[in-house]
Amino acid sequence: MNISQLAQAAKKASIQLAATSTDAKNNALQHIAKKLKEREAEIIAANTKDMERSSTENLEAPLLKRLKFDSEKIDGVIAGIHSLIALPEPVGSTLCSTELDSGLELYKVSCPIGVIGVIFESRPDALVQISSLCLKSGNSVLLKGGSEAKETNKILAEIIKSASIEANIEKGWIQLLETRDDVNEMLALDEYIDLIIPRGSNEFVQYIMNNSNIPVLGHADGICHVYIDKEADIDMAVDVAVDSKCQYVAVCNAAETFLIHADVAETVLPKLADKLAEHSVEIFGCDKTQKIISCSPATEQSWKTEYLDYKVSIKVVADITEAINHINTYGSGHTESIVTKNSAEADLFMNLADSGNVLWNCSTRFSDGFRYGLGAEVGISTNKIHARGPVGLEGLLIYKWKLKGTGQIVSDYASGTAEFTHNPLNKNFSI
Amino acid sequence: MNISQLAQAAKKASIQLAATSTDAKNNALQHIAKKLKEREAEIIAANTKDMERSSTENLEAPLLKRLKFDSEKIDGVIAGIHSLIALPEPVGSTLCSTELDSGLELYKVSCPIGVIGVIFESRPDALVQISSLCLKSGNSVLLKGGSEAKETNKILAEIIKSASIEANIEKGWIQLLETRDDVNEMLALDEYIDLIIPRGSNEFVQYIMNNSNIPVLGHADGICHVYIDKEADIDMAVDVAVDSKCQYVAVCNAAETFLIHADVAETVLPKLADKLAEHSVEIFGCDKTQKIISCSPATEQSWKTEYLDYKVSIKVVADITEAINHINTYGSGHTESIVTKNSAEADLFMNLADSGNVLWNCSTRFSDGFRYGLGAEVGISTNKIHARGPVGLEGLLIYKWKLKGTGQIVSDYASGTAEFTHNPLNKNFSI
Repeated sequence: MNISQLAQAAKKASIQLAATSTDAKNNALQHIAKKLKEREAEIIAANTKDMERSSTENLEAPLLKRLKFDSEKIDGVIAGIHSLIALPEPVGSTLCSTELDSGLELYKVSCPIGVIGVIFESRPDALVQISSLCLKSGNSVLLKGGSEAKETNKILAEIIKSASIEANIEKGWIQLLETRDDVNEMLALDEYIDLIIPRGSNEFVQYIMNNSNIPVLGHADGICHVYIDKEADIDMAVDVAVDSKCQYVAVCNAAETFLIHADVAETVLPKLADKLAEHSVEIFGCDKTQKIISCSPATEQSWKTEYLDYKVSIKVVADITEAINHINTYGSGHTESIVTKNSAEADLFMNLADSGNVLWNCSTRFSDGFRYGLGAEVGISTNKIHARGPVGLEGLLIYKWKLKGTGQIVSDYASGTAEFTHNPLNKNFSI
Repeated sequence: MNISQLAQAAKKASIQLAATSTDAKNNALQHIAKKLKEREAEIIAANTKDMERSSTENLEAPLLKRLKFDSEKIDGVIAGIHSLIALPEPVGSTLCSTELDSGLELYKVSCPIGVIGVIFESRPDALVQISSLCLKSGNSVLLKGGSEAKETNKILAEIIKSASIEANIEKGWIQLLETRDDVNEMLALDEYIDLIIPRGSNEFVQYIMNNSNIPVLGHADGICHVYIDKEADIDMAVDVAVDSKCQYVAVCNAAETFLIHADVAETVLPKLADKLAEHSVEIFGCDKTQKIISCSPATEQSWKTEYLDYKVSIKVVADITEAINHINTYGSGHTESIVTKNSAEADLFMNLADSGNVLWNCSTRFSDGFRYGLGAEVGISTNKIHARGPVGLEGLLIYKWKLKGTGQIVSDYASGTAEFTHNPLNKNFSI
């Protein structure tokens, strides 16, 4: 099958999957978990091939670590599937209900989106997590993983596909794409694919956004800020800033810029510089920062840079308004934190900083689906519609309106023979 | 100001508007309503110019009727503003709350999307409705109305702008675009504009979707179906079908295709044809339909056609599965109705027909924001994400995550010094 046929098959399966019972979906997830354990040796053998090839190709050590899929990681994804089984059924929830007239009842009911295309990085666990989230939420999925993991992805997709078919799930719901060309073909298939979730480098996500009419859920950049207010607890501020920058530099919720209120800059900056030096962080400071601590000069480009590295931009600001304006000008709408003892300032910051996640007196690194308690995360969104911030199961759902009548026609309401009541029903949809 | 500057000003205003109090927004709406009444004569004078010019240009009668904006229609939009004032504040609702750890509280809080671009048809009431919905929901708005209504739109936008500024709303939140070129410029401004809602012809909406990276909320087509099941009450089925087709043919929720179960085709079709003849509806029937009633032959193209006219396609289907497959193949995801006494069949249909609105034993014409009791409608969406079906105030909102801490850093959770509790809080966000 070519990519268009795969997508068409996924669309067809998605219709049935939307109406598949909780038990059927959970049984299938159970069976997938069982088969992943049973076929562990095959998975590890495939992963060994990927690891050996990638070693030969000099893949960097952190990426090799992410690529590795051993018995422990397999147990981890199986545990994830069991947590997912335990979650309540996301499809079929009545979100609101209204009596339009006697015997004419309107229900807004949650349902799957349909067909999701997910492009993810080299971690093979992502394939299992994403496909099980899609199955639980009743969506078909087209998957494209990192090419480093191609053997591992192939066996994992094959196991999930065959186990789900054995458990009577409509075949076609899970499709593995193998090449970059496959992805390019997928981008044109807005007839069959309802949403694309790209995870990966900024350039890659931007490329997807620019080359498809299919809605895209994701984030291109993670330029996160910590603003240290003049009323901050200085030690707390330094700890939060250093954790935001250094706890894990290679991720989108790591801070890239610190904004420091001028009134406390002379106190904060030397302390901050000392702590950052312990992590060998290179500082790019504005003119005022350069006068207080030793650092490289920041340029206009510094404020737009996502370092993903032991580097940070620092700017001294006159007040909270300048901090907020800076964030709304240079930020990427991802995560911003304010450190202050002044609750009115915190409130202002959290209302005016136009980002998916606005934090007070804590590290930007908390902005994450697992830490938020959302369960597995499909991705982080800097979109302004549908879903924002860490996206869990809920981001894979939409709703449909179900209207139950007893023969009503609009002519009667237009002529005044009948009248709408519009009474809240507060009841769940049932036939 | 050029369009980019207008959009930038709208973006800037949207930040303040997001944090504007309920009272301030309602006062502004009140003041706008007052000024619309006070300046009624100016509005009518401008509308008279539009009406005269459009008459000279031979605008069709139904369009002239929609263009007319007299004292009664002005009172109508003013009543609409008063209803909007009475609605609860949509911004700042806590959608969920979780204690991540002692002193670390997460809240998901509703907020405006930001800047909305709306392109609407020749009804000047749309300008008032859309801009007041945007103000209530805290969004900036760029408006482009039909060129037939340009004088009316200009005075209405001017009144709303000046009245809102007098009521201390951040200036820049409402901007009127005047030409088609302005719209084309707007489509490129994804840096400032978060969502485009185009209302108008299919071709136009499709053009917008194909020519912008900005998310689009809307519907290109309204190919709605009525399926008459073998267990339908025949009289009810005929009434529902005729109302769906004929009650108002020029709208997106009018039916374009009837699907008739083969077992009842010989009973239903003659009755249906008689009633349709009363409205002079031209029928395009499949082979089987042609053997039962007199009609023109349907072609493959008939199933894809949105007539918006006294024309209908009719197909005899073997069973409900063929009906559902037909809908999912040729439909536009707008509105589908099943007429049947069999509740299991209705349930199946409502689960498997992949449309925003799925109806049982009632007319497709009910699929509308006003009839659904949603208040004013921004538009109808056939999107699969964010909002589906009739879109009211809620479609102009998104959320942000607000996290209140007391100095927490992620290192402590990574090292095991601290642990997440993830307890539901069930409380509203407050500082």
